[in-house]
Amino acid sequence: MFAQLPPALQNLHLPLRLKLWDGNELDLGPEPSVTIVVKDPLLVSGFTRPSLDLLGSAFVEGRLELEGSISEVVRVCDELSKALVEEDDSLPVRTEHDKATDAASISYHYDLSNAFYQLWLDKEMVYSCAYFKTGNETLEQAQQDKLHHLCRKLRLQPGEYLLDVGCGWGGLSRFAAREYGVKVFGITLSREQLALAQERVKAEGLEDQVELQLLDYRDLPQDGRFDKIVSVGMFEHVGHANLELYAKCLFGAVKEGGLVMNHGITAKHTDGRPVGRGAGDFIDRYVFPNGELPHLSMITAYLSEAGLEVVDVESLRLHYAKTLDHWSARLEAKLDVAAAMVPEQALRIWRLYLAGCAYAFSQGWINLHQILAVKPLADGSHNLPLTREDIYR
Amino acid sequence: MFAQLPPALQNLHLPLRLKLWDGNELDLGPEPSVTIVVKDPLLVSGFTRPSLDLLGSAFVEGRLELEGSISEVVRVCDELSKALVEEDDSLPVRTEHDKATDAASISYHYDLSNAFYQLWLDKEMVYSCAYFKTGNETLEQAQQDKLHHLCRKLRLQPGEYLLDVGCGWGGLSRFAAREYGVKVFGITLSREQLALAQERVKAEGLEDQVELQLLDYRDLPQDGRFDKIVSVGMFEHVGHANLELYAKCLFGAVKEGGLVMNHGITAKHTDGRPVGRGAGDFIDRYVFPNGELPHLSMITAYLSEAGLEVVDVESLRLHYAKTLDHWSARLEAKLDVAAAMVPEQALRIWRLYLAGCAYAFSQGWINLHQILAVKPLADGSHNLPLTREDIYR
Repeated sequence: MFAQLPPALQNLHLPLRLKLWDGNELDLGPEPSVTIVVKDPLLVSGFTRPSLDLLGSAFVEGRLELEGSISEVVRVCDELSKALVEEDDSLPVRTEHDKATDAASISYHYDLSNAFYQLWLDKEMVYSCAYFKTGNETLEQAQQDKLHHLCRKLRLQPGEYLLDVGCGWGGLSRFAAREYGVKVFGITLSREQLALAQERVKAEGLEDQVELQLLDYRDLPQDGRFDKIVSVGMFEHVGHANLELYAKCLFGAVKEGGLVMNHGITAKHTDGRPVGRGAGDFIDRYVFPNGELPHLSMITAYLSEAGLEVVDVESLRLHYAKTLDHWSARLEAKLDVAAAMVPEQALRIWRLYLAGCAYAFSQGWINLHQILAVKPLADGSHNLPLTREDIYR
Repeated sequence: MFAQLPPALQNLHLPLRLKLWDGNELDLGPEPSVTIVVKDPLLVSGFTRPSLDLLGSAFVEGRLELEGSISEVVRVCDELSKALVEEDDSLPVRTEHDKATDAASISYHYDLSNAFYQLWLDKEMVYSCAYFKTGNETLEQAQQDKLHHLCRKLRLQPGEYLLDVGCGWGGLSRFAAREYGVKVFGITLSREQLALAQERVKAEGLEDQVELQLLDYRDLPQDGRFDKIVSVGMFEHVGHANLELYAKCLFGAVKEGGLVMNHGITAKHTDGRPVGRGAGDFIDRYVFPNGELPHLSMITAYLSEAGLEVVDVESLRLHYAKTLDHWSARLEAKLDVAAAMVPEQALRIWRLYLAGCAYAFSQGWINLHQILAVKPLADGSHNLPLTREDIYR
């Protein structure tokens, strides 16, 4: 059968073993660390152009198995793909985002199973890039440090009113209320997240300080009632078509002189053309349906045009690679427990997604930018400290 | 005569006195702090639509005089303009930038008179936004702190090779060589700047460390020989049409893993539509011919597409307002000396430009962004510290 494979495949010298449905084996190099078990004969032709989407999808569908450490699997599969697949230069088709579609997309990912997410996230269930001051911190510590980093950049003061857009399981909302004495209004579109988040607010006796609701960002009050706004890992779901509206909603919700922190994943290219040979298609199909990553320049443009002045941007790309390494390792260590919590296909998806995104961040296919913006006062000025030194005190 | 002025002018209640060529006076409010002396009868019709360009140009041409402190003059003229002029929503016409045009434009501004610039700049003649840690620093101190801030962000190490694009009078080049032990290659298009800069390099005995040349950025070596690049107050002269090329030239000049700092003025709007009722036209005609300010999103897009990953952005808008206040006050205190150094028209231009730009930054019509970018290593990573804490140690 492997005579049908392109000769290029046999000259790759990758630490990869191909195992066929009929028991035949072919090593592409000495001491293979990864094995691809091809269970479906129809897949063989796909190996002439093994995009990451093809390999990942076949794994999710159970048409092939991937053996080896999951991060090594991702690395070697990328080497294989790189050798045989050209980067696609087509532009992705963007869909309209209405409230119903967005709610369904959010539900698909975040309503999967609270117990499953608890298995590999930190105790506060902070489901976004952590902040590693030295690189040697535990995940728990790095997530605490991230929450501090966000609150410090926002210069939170006791008694201020903070809006948490996309509050997830409420980790940041509770942290800000507890540690910085602010009042918080948090919103999410995930019923599972909201239920657990509210449970935890109650358990900590924070009901007077933290109010969480199932609410679309398009329904936020536009009366400038919030002193500060934080949006973490949420704007990736907004969609290019609605980013302008999103920025306007943030502008309308925050008071003059107030700060807005947008923390989220950004695309490598300004025109949205794909990188990673199909990796984005895989994410779109199986992980984050209707997710769309704008380039840094796009979100800063919309924030700015909405009237929010961009004052501070920080890339945490390599922090996210590290965060995902932690998540992936924690999940891999508990695969048997996880298998009882979610369908087999979901587990396959999440395993590849966590290891794959760690790799994508390390390669620079995607980035993470914290963008701090201020809504200027009527006279054009603002009251931010002159330097960022206070963040690091 | 003033019966011809629109009634709106008489209901403004501004601290403004209008004095006519025939001796007639009209106060627009009690206790006028500013007087506009209209010397040319033909100007009267212009007061139906007193754009800042019209007022400024008439002052430069000697058709009117402006009395009062220069910053109060600017403020009151803006109040007057705001009351009667709608913001123009046309888009500016962009010109092609060739080397000859750019050289002439640079020469117009920077070859004016070294002695004149020495009169109101700090001793190192740093002609860009200073960095005020508390706001109470002297200009000298704030410029030193700015140079440190740039060098720290660039993580300069002894022995590294630094490219200084648009080195002006060499203040940053000499500072980096002296204080951080780097080797510097600086370029400028101004012969006057270069002459004085080289004189100062020699006076400090830095010839072995600092090489300065008259060179266009398009002629920079593209062999990645520089460890770090700094470009301060230069990219405003590049022009939108050439920003892509500019970013590519920086990418080609810096080594893998190297850092690029772009410090410069950015526009309020993404589409370049004007703010400040003609202020930009005045600047274009009299101060910085062929200067063009891109929005933050535009320069980050070009840097990114060239292969430079944006890792840190900081707005220093209010620092520039303060810097210009210092410059303006220093010039105003030495007008008699200055008058002997430059033509009368030039002095009128520079007086308005310094006070006017201080006002423009304070209003948010323009911004100042320090953008730090890294050229990633072949494996996609980089060696920047995980946090920005080291900058503030």
